[in-house]
Amino acid sequence: MVSKKIKKALEGSSVIRAMFTEGKEMAKKYGAENVYDFSLGNPATPAPEAVKEAIKRILDEKDPMFVHGYMDNSGYEDVRQAVADNLNHRFDTHFDFHNIIMTVGAAGGLNIIFKTILDPGDEVLVFAPYFGEYNSYAANFDAKTVAVHPDPETFQPDLDDFAAKFTEKTKAVIINTPNNPTGVVYSDATLKAIADILKEKQKAYKKEIYLVSDEPYRELVYDGQKENFLTKYYENTIVGYSFSKSLSLPGERIGYVVVPNEVADADTVIAGINVSNRTLGFVNAPSLIQLAVAECLEEKTDVAYYDKNRTRLYEALTGYGYTCIKPEGAFYMWVKSPDEDEDRFVEQAKKYHLILVKGGAFCWPGYVRIAYCVSYDTIERSLPAFEKLAEEYQLSGK
Amino acid sequence: MVSKKIKKALEGSSVIRAMFTEGKEMAKKYGAENVYDFSLGNPATPAPEAVKEAIKRILDEKDPMFVHGYMDNSGYEDVRQAVADNLNHRFDTHFDFHNIIMTVGAAGGLNIIFKTILDPGDEVLVFAPYFGEYNSYAANFDAKTVAVHPDPETFQPDLDDFAAKFTEKTKAVIINTPNNPTGVVYSDATLKAIADILKEKQKAYKKEIYLVSDEPYRELVYDGQKENFLTKYYENTIVGYSFSKSLSLPGERIGYVVVPNEVADADTVIAGINVSNRTLGFVNAPSLIQLAVAECLEEKTDVAYYDKNRTRLYEALTGYGYTCIKPEGAFYMWVKSPDEDEDRFVEQAKKYHLILVKGGAFCWPGYVRIAYCVSYDTIERSLPAFEKLAEEYQLSGK
Repeated sequence: MVSKKIKKALEGSSVIRAMFTEGKEMAKKYGAENVYDFSLGNPATPAPEAVKEAIKRILDEKDPMFVHGYMDNSGYEDVRQAVADNLNHRFDTHFDFHNIIMTVGAAGGLNIIFKTILDPGDEVLVFAPYFGEYNSYAANFDAKTVAVHPDPETFQPDLDDFAAKFTEKTKAVIINTPNNPTGVVYSDATLKAIADILKEKQKAYKKEIYLVSDEPYRELVYDGQKENFLTKYYENTIVGYSFSKSLSLPGERIGYVVVPNEVADADTVIAGINVSNRTLGFVNAPSLIQLAVAECLEEKTDVAYYDKNRTRLYEALTGYGYTCIKPEGAFYMWVKSPDEDEDRFVEQAKKYHLILVKGGAFCWPGYVRIAYCVSYDTIERSLPAFEKLAEEYQLSGK
Repeated sequence: MVSKKIKKALEGSSVIRAMFTEGKEMAKKYGAENVYDFSLGNPATPAPEAVKEAIKRILDEKDPMFVHGYMDNSGYEDVRQAVADNLNHRFDTHFDFHNIIMTVGAAGGLNIIFKTILDPGDEVLVFAPYFGEYNSYAANFDAKTVAVHPDPETFQPDLDDFAAKFTEKTKAVIINTPNNPTGVVYSDATLKAIADILKEKQKAYKKEIYLVSDEPYRELVYDGQKENFLTKYYENTIVGYSFSKSLSLPGERIGYVVVPNEVADADTVIAGINVSNRTLGFVNAPSLIQLAVAECLEEKTDVAYYDKNRTRLYEALTGYGYTCIKPEGAFYMWVKSPDEDEDRFVEQAKKYHLILVKGGAFCWPGYVRIAYCVSYDTIERSLPAFEKLAEEYQLSGK
């Protein structure tokens, strides 16, 4: 009936989406104010007013044939140049429009990158824990992901394990910093070490190995850290970006891919990504929203909003006795399950109307992810529930 | 470097897109008013004013967290219900929101349908000539298209050839009426006969065979014909639709898929398409434009605009001695190449600044496609060029 792959996918479908659906049902049953849904990475701050103003201005001032019409599969040239200029002045890069392909979000971007570089049987290294959808994206092209272990204390990558996981089949490495689900930001030292290992492995295996940087949380960093951009560490780096978090537009499916000139055979890779965008069925990133984001590139993410949640939640949870990795970026907190059975812990949490996602969904059991991209009020009101849950597990609070 | 599949794709990339690019370059060189670009199916009429008004109203009245946020992978329930209601009252169907999945255009829709139903090695029958991208969409899932011949006079499908092309591996049939590139509308008799053959083949091969109806031109029919909707002919019909042509929004990538309850195991197919939408990287159809089209479902395509072009062009070209299939729908005219070498004919046409697409791009050489979705003025001004080209080939005009 349905294809074998889809049959399998239906059996093990997205845990995050399932929790999101369950959260919505609990909200109907108990009232939204009595359910603390930490399941989904849906930004908690509205899109900046500038987005609305830009859309209205574009509709009023520009020809609808241009605004809603076909353009190059890679996007409007002016939009791509605006993105290049923005990156250049922020990160001292040297891109122009031809290095930029506008995409249907980062998920669309990663898929067209993978379609371009992966052959069946290829392996893609991923630093665990990681966004489980990467497995599906690699499987779309009959490639498979290979998990690299984290340092269990810091959740920075275990570099020895990284070096050990390369094989003849390794074609790409996915990196995601600031990280979903841990909130960890990979340090400069870590990134340099990763680049060194990659360079060495390219030589050893006599072929290109791509670093694919998934950067939806690029601007979400705390404690005065600077935003980072990874193309400076390693030549064969391809970036996938999304405006979902930075401009709070997750439903709009808008992002871009960057292929620097330093990538080997960059023009062929760019042409391949352009063709993949068309043949995989995206055709082009949605047109009106392309034009709108190009006018909002200087808009700032409301980092303070999430920082307030982060600080309150981290202090409260560690106070109750939970073991948490202190987030340095993104809007996730990675908490050790006090139950040896994390499924049971997630079920217990539900009794207190806390919707958490188990670490297994990120291919790293024994933890849960808390998406604290909710209102501060929700954080405050959820704390007694976390406290009761801690008491149930006899955690020793401060 | 790049994957083997992409390397191959780059070698034989879209002829239509190449002609579009060439047309733009010629326009720069000779002036847009002196180049008659009939390459691309880009609607020639602007989106209705109602689309602009709807977008502005939605931005003013609704919460940006709702307008730009994540929703179910299948789209907003209210939008899907509005689409179902619209189809029900136009075509006497009985859908509700759960039969509708909002998609990133028809190209996105076809890909998630194919991902859901096709296994590697499966065959998909397609009525030639056809939109060449179908080959890529099937290849994305390691399936292949098998061309069914047309009746060479009417360009309705050759039903004997259709029946003869089924094998054990046939999993789906793509149908596209009104047709790109011929402009032919399949008759009620043809559709009934196709359905009968499908029913017989399902029995013979003891499995489901899906009819996948690609309907971007559904509303574009001439000469008082009624719009048709294909689910009534055959139970296992899945529809892919796009608002690209009907609302002149090709850049926005917005459409939907319909899976009727009559489809075998409909709920599994719907769930599979929903998962495919997520895992292939679409995630969901763009949010704001979903909300906007739901408010514009009663808007009418400006059929008269294209009809005027059709009539003028058909009369002029047949008058000059060209052999044309008279279009009954869509905005394409299918013209017999007066040169035995259609590539040479396309090159000759370019000398007169006429940009045509060769039949080979639609897997049916010996013809060219004229996309007459241009201004009437362009039609008028192009006629002397067509006339001179006819004279060069010594066609005998009326």
